[in-house]
Amino acid sequence: MDGEPNAITEAGTRFVALAEEHAADFATRADQHDREGSFPFENFESMKKSGFMAAPAPSALGGLGLTSLHDLAVGMSRLGRGCASTAIAVNMHLASVWTMGRMLAAEPEGELAPAIDGLLKGIVAGQITTAVAGTEAGTDIAHPQTTATATDNGYLLNGTKIFGTLSPVANVFFSPVRVAEGNGGYSAGLAMVFRGTPGMDIKDNWDALGMRGSGSNDVIYTDCLVPAASIMRNAADFGEVSAIGVETAISGNVGLIAVFMGIAETARDAVVATAKTRRKAPSNRTLAERPSVQHLIGELDVDIAVCRSMVAHIGRQVDAFSEAYPRGRAPVEVAMELDRQFQCAKLTVNRRAIDAVDKALTASGGAGYLTKSPLSRLYRDVRAGPFMQPFAPHEALEFIGRVALGQDPALDR
Amino acid sequence: MDGEPNAITEAGTRFVALAEEHAADFATRADQHDREGSFPFENFESMKKSGFMAAPAPSALGGLGLTSLHDLAVGMSRLGRGCASTAIAVNMHLASVWTMGRMLAAEPEGELAPAIDGLLKGIVAGQITTAVAGTEAGTDIAHPQTTATATDNGYLLNGTKIFGTLSPVANVFFSPVRVAEGNGGYSAGLAMVFRGTPGMDIKDNWDALGMRGSGSNDVIYTDCLVPAASIMRNAADFGEVSAIGVETAISGNVGLIAVFMGIAETARDAVVATAKTRRKAPSNRTLAERPSVQHLIGELDVDIAVCRSMVAHIGRQVDAFSEAYPRGRAPVEVAMELDRQFQCAKLTVNRRAIDAVDKALTASGGAGYLTKSPLSRLYRDVRAGPFMQPFAPHEALEFIGRVALGQDPALDR
Amino acid sequence: MDGEPNAITEAGTRFVALAEEHAADFATRADQHDREGSFPFENFESMKKSGFMAAPAPSALGGLGLTSLHDLAVGMSRLGRGCASTAIAVNMHLASVWTMGRMLAAEPEGELAPAIDGLLKGIVAGQITTAVAGTEAGTDIAHPQTTATATDNGYLLNGTKIFGTLSPVANVFFSPVRVAEGNGGYSAGLAMVFRGTPGMDIKDNWDALGMRGSGSNDVIYTDCLVPAASIMRNAADFGEVSAIGVETAISGNVGLIAVFMGIAETARDAVVATAKTRRKAPSNRTLAERPSVQHLIGELDVDIAVCRSMVAHIGRQVDAFSEAYPRGRAPVEVAMELDRQFQCAKLTVNRRAIDAVDKALTASGGAGYLTKSPLSRLYRDVRAGPFMQPFAPHEALEFIGRVALGQDPALDR
Amino acid sequence: MDGEPNAITEAGTRFVALAEEHAADFATRADQHDREGSFPFENFESMKKSGFMAAPAPSALGGLGLTSLHDLAVGMSRLGRGCASTAIAVNMHLASVWTMGRMLAAEPEGELAPAIDGLLKGIVAGQITTAVAGTEAGTDIAHPQTTATATDNGYLLNGTKIFGTLSPVANVFFSPVRVAEGNGGYSAGLAMVFRGTPGMDIKDNWDALGMRGSGSNDVIYTDCLVPAASIMRNAADFGEVSAIGVETAISGNVGLIAVFMGIAETARDAVVATAKTRRKAPSNRTLAERPSVQHLIGELDVDIAVCRSMVAHIGRQVDAFSEAYPRGRAPVEVAMELDRQFQCAKLTVNRRAIDAVDKALTASGGAGYLTKSPLSRLYRDVRAGPFMQPFAPHEALEFIGRVALGQDPALDR
Repeated sequence: MDGEPNAITEAGTRFVALAEEHAADFATRADQHDREGSFPFENFESMKKSGFMAAPAPSALGGLGLTSLHDLAVGMSRLGRGCASTAIAVNMHLASVWTMGRMLAAEPEGELAPAIDGLLKGIVAGQITTAVAGTEAGTDIAHPQTTATATDNGYLLNGTKIFGTLSPVANVFFSPVRVAEGNGGYSAGLAMVFRGTPGMDIKDNWDALGMRGSGSNDVIYTDCLVPAASIMRNAADFGEVSAIGVETAISGNVGLIAVFMGIAETARDAVVATAKTRRKAPSNRTLAERPSVQHLIGELDVDIAVCRSMVAHIGRQVDAFSEAYPRGRAPVEVAMELDRQFQCAKLTVNRRAIDAVDKALTASGGAGYLTKSPLSRLYRDVRAGPFMQPFAPHEALEFIGRVALGQDPALDR
Repeated sequence: MDGEPNAITEAGTRFVALAEEHAADFATRADQHDREGSFPFENFESMKKSGFMAAPAPSALGGLGLTSLHDLAVGMSRLGRGCASTAIAVNMHLASVWTMGRMLAAEPEGELAPAIDGLLKGIVAGQITTAVAGTEAGTDIAHPQTTATATDNGYLLNGTKIFGTLSPVANVFFSPVRVAEGNGGYSAGLAMVFRGTPGMDIKDNWDALGMRGSGSNDVIYTDCLVPAASIMRNAADFGEVSAIGVETAISGNVGLIAVFMGIAETARDAVVATAKTRRKAPSNRTLAERPSVQHLIGELDVDIAVCRSMVAHIGRQVDAFSEAYPRGRAPVEVAMELDRQFQCAKLTVNRRAIDAVDKALTASGGAGYLTKSPLSRLYRDVRAGPFMQPFAPHEALEFIGRVALGQDPALDR
Repeated sequence: MDGEPNAITEAGTRFVALAEEHAADFATRADQHDREGSFPFENFESMKKSGFMAAPAPSALGGLGLTSLHDLAVGMSRLGRGCASTAIAVNMHLASVWTMGRMLAAEPEGELAPAIDGLLKGIVAGQITTAVAGTEAGTDIAHPQTTATATDNGYLLNGTKIFGTLSPVANVFFSPVRVAEGNGGYSAGLAMVFRGTPGMDIKDNWDALGMRGSGSNDVIYTDCLVPAASIMRNAADFGEVSAIGVETAISGNVGLIAVFMGIAETARDAVVATAKTRRKAPSNRTLAERPSVQHLIGELDVDIAVCRSMVAHIGRQVDAFSEAYPRGRAPVEVAMELDRQFQCAKLTVNRRAIDAVDKALTASGGAGYLTKSPLSRLYRDVRAGPFMQPFAPHEALEFIGRVALGQDPALDR
Repeated sequence: MDGEPNAITEAGTRFVALAEEHAADFATRADQHDREGSFPFENFESMKKSGFMAAPAPSALGGLGLTSLHDLAVGMSRLGRGCASTAIAVNMHLASVWTMGRMLAAEPEGELAPAIDGLLKGIVAGQITTAVAGTEAGTDIAHPQTTATATDNGYLLNGTKIFGTLSPVANVFFSPVRVAEGNGGYSAGLAMVFRGTPGMDIKDNWDALGMRGSGSNDVIYTDCLVPAASIMRNAADFGEVSAIGVETAISGNVGLIAVFMGIAETARDAVVATAKTRRKAPSNRTLAERPSVQHLIGELDVDIAVCRSMVAHIGRQVDAFSEAYPRGRAPVEVAMELDRQFQCAKLTVNRRAIDAVDKALTASGGAGYLTKSPLSRLYRDVRAGPFMQPFAPHEALEFIGRVALGQDPALDR
């Protein structure tokens, strides 16, 4: 009865249990990876072995058959409690696996089915790890400037992706691109690029305020030639809002917001535990006995409760959407409406998770400000939340308002 | 996909449908009752006829068999959209009916079963309407100062109850009392008093900022003699926290917070509708086209989404508690933990509902400040939320913090 | 050392002392006028007699020579503590008198000097009370739709002004108009209309959530003929931002925000006084002894301190601007920068004053929600703040951001 | 007219000009010291040479004669814009110099006058730099647990001070101690310890989230013998609130809050500059042209305006207090009232400065999260604010409320 959301499917229950086991292990090394800015390779080995990284693969193919994004989010929150860098990194992989499963379910005999089938089998076998190298400077995620130019042998990719989370271990990268059309215009596409393809340069340059173990390196394409079949064309025109775009954004983000909640939960538990035992002069009462600390923890717990409620409620809404509409079949208005709800949740969870860690830091009385305190890491990690695209908080409010008011949901025409 | 919580049980679905029908009707008279400060007697006649007021009675007795407090809350939110005064008034009755059903379920052969059975039948027949006259000035709800003093013929009640919502039509009143024990101490009790009992004075003096149609009059007991059987003794000692106390508080409040959410939803929908059509010089663009209005509505919608998530999530938690523990059988620690979660929800929903109406008022551009605008009523009505006991916001934070920190949950020893 | 801003000029000191005397008197009738929605005619008689209403008139003409808007604001805050309706009403008059004094100072031999001199003498003699009938539905204050059309005998005014505060006693009305130019375009103008001019209809229809004693009636012009000399042309084109526009807006608003602060101060003092004496069972400790109440009052006092700091600081900035630039001589960039600062203050003071009264209401424990409590009036009155133009909060943020970012400050082209 | 507070005394004007010059220089190395966690020794050499570090010394002794704490705060805000670590470090020294000047002014013939005179001359000569090693784990600043035990040769100090800002260069340390009295009780005292005294161990162990160049090392006293004259006894009993205690706390903190404001100002200016030039696809409009960015910067500027108003207003109040009462002569009630105001300012400025940097980070769009961005340093630095004692935010609210409600201002009896 502590309000944390729990799995509602059987597969989810197993997934969440795995997440908790991994989290307990990863937590022991989180501070070290943060300090060193090193990538936790061993965590990914461990998650491959346990089957965690193949969880959203269909059970027929050897996965856990995790289809509930609600439950995926719950698992991500638990993993995030242990090591947030690992959690946001694996999340992008899991979202891709989930999407593949969903594509297969929507069109089991579709053109892409054999390729997806192959990828999923590779994932189940622990041979394939996917990453999304999507973000670029100077544009938003819906308008990639990385170009795919058709040649006789395939497409040449050119462009620079940043925040390429998980890049140190991924061997399959998905990158949104714009495909140059003959008429000078562009259409939207998604490139799949295997690690080691000539012209692909995965940097080792991730150095940030937080999430220092997430390996979010730059990925640079310079005349990188990929086979024609490696470029998936989206149904929507370049830059158009679409149900698939919404679904993709949400499937990647619902786990992310849960990770930030998990960070806040860890900070909260740490400071509550400390408050129960730490005594201060002159009275030598514990912190827990002091009214101002009680009030502060009360406020912190409200932050947590808000996060949990929103993750739980949006998770169920997302699942209801997935169940109602096979991939790509939802009316765009319905998808926009779901995205409006999702953006409300993302905005709020990110903000309240930050606020919660801030309060935990305050309650720590200065101890949490020291590098040696995990709280100082959590404070840096949790701040990554609002940067996840789409949307930043100020954009989200504009988007939510525009959809609510019946305006064109695109923010920048 | 607009995020509003919906009923999850069959009985709840019927209850919510009734609520929506009633709301549409009541909305047409809400402003008038507000202006006149008059009690909407006709609304209660209508809810008796439809079976709405007997919804939580067991279906075997002719009720809808509504047992889910989640669904009760959803229904209350819909009713609150139409007339909040009516909604908070009928809510206290419904919570009492729900409690009776639950007592009967817990102890179908119990001492009180025949009496409860009788009451429920009267409620189904539309002959009985119950009210809780609980609040008193100068004390909190857990420590009533109204005394019940044993005499040869029963108990003499003395004390003044305020905020006696629903008193104009109720004919059975439940009032928490303290029962004078021989030793100078007190035990806790609940008096059931029939309207018209000599020594009971139901004033007609409700005159407040908002909720002006709720009939929240003073109820004064002066040597009011009631039969000995009319005093129920609580298991807990006077002023002790208990699982039953928590359950009672939550069953009454979960519908209330939903009403305040419903007010906010109405204000939001009104202002969104206006913004879509209202034009302003010099550009004559609609309000909906203006970035600052979009941002404001974005923030308002976040408020609404937070309310909905918390009502949905706490509703499910409360149902899980009810299912796990028959009335009175939950460990007090579990009940406290649930109450901690509930207070997080109550605090947040009340606050965000107020904030939402405030933003709607801002978006109205001054028109909403006029008496003739429903927004000016909603602004006054929604402010009642934080006064509902337990707890006020500042007390709630103390309570939440104390429970979280393992301190005695009683706020005032 | 309680942080309240105090007058910094001698004339201001006398003005503030008068304000406090009047406030003590007006406070005794504020609730009654609120309940009845009646205009406090007697307050204006009293303020005429004391010289308060002529305070900004030059001392050479018999005024107090109040030139500091900082001090005018301080006085308004004190008056607002007693009766906010009276304060916002007289504020518009005082701002006009201040402006006249400033016009005279800037151009003592100017074309308008004789007329201003006459008006000021009438004001000092208690024969003239001015009002600004400026607001219109469907446009913002910078783009009046009320038209002044030239005829052989003067101008014909047509249009409807709303929120015509002070209209029950004013005998000179200033109304922004657009003057029809031959070419189909408009220029900006300000009409001065004497009460009783045929074609001017001052309604008695003010009925709002709060500020019920402010007489903010509709003022309707229907082919209302005024002499050509009654229309002042602004230097700026219609709808253009200008230093004079900024100065006018600020001179009217700086006192207004102080009034809303005054409301909050009254609510705060009332609830602090109550908390010190009111006891509650079971412990019978005073509210003041309870940690959660201390915390709440702490937060309330922070609200007040923020209001006071911002009123004081913006007041000094406004005075520095007035001293640096005679009316109309400031570069528009400097004026915009000042307005940016002013809008930060207005937004914050209005918000924190509302928040402060909200907290006072919470601390009242339900008693404040009753109509008989002054807090319920203060809660309604203080909500008027954000409606004062320019700007509403959402518009203010857009304006502040645009000026900060070097964009065109006009919000609606 | 951008609202920044400016010096109001002549000495202050010179001090602020020096601060700006130093800030421009220090800014060039701030990121490097942060990255390395190194102490900016060269900054202190520079501030000694310029006379900045002797500014509050009387001009008769060669200082600038800076007596206005308002102006000291203004200077600190400017210095903080360049290098916050340097600013908070030098602030504690400056506050001590200011206090010495004030002690001398209050009792020019007092017992301590010769010693103070000597210290001030040393400071002017650049030979003495003072630090306050005051904070301890497990107690608050008013109840030091470090003991001074009388011996025949002086006092033996034992205890551990943390957050000993400026310790790498200070050669005179002031440490609050409790002086063991014969009766088993303690009185309050302040020890002055010269660097290099045997038994004093200045660690090189400062490693924190932010303010990494402030040298806030542990200072450990182990049977550290100091002459009897090195222990100043306070008039107040150990742990008692006193006017001197308040004055000391405020003189140290008023500059600190200004530093945190300065951090926010730098973050704001950086992001505004970026927004004006950075373009994003698809429209390639600058960020400054986007409504959501305008709104965000609007909110950020409100944060800044609140900080500036509160620093300015509290600065003037503190100066008025200093002028009204020579050191130690203020009634404790007056001092408490001032402290209540100060705590409102501290709480708000610290919070809004953090919020402002947070918004700047959001506006940066992810770029600010990278280690190479100064914003990521500012985000860490600004978070130190609420840890400065007294008080933490939750304690401040309790303190403010208690003083407002007439309760004992001590938080922990």
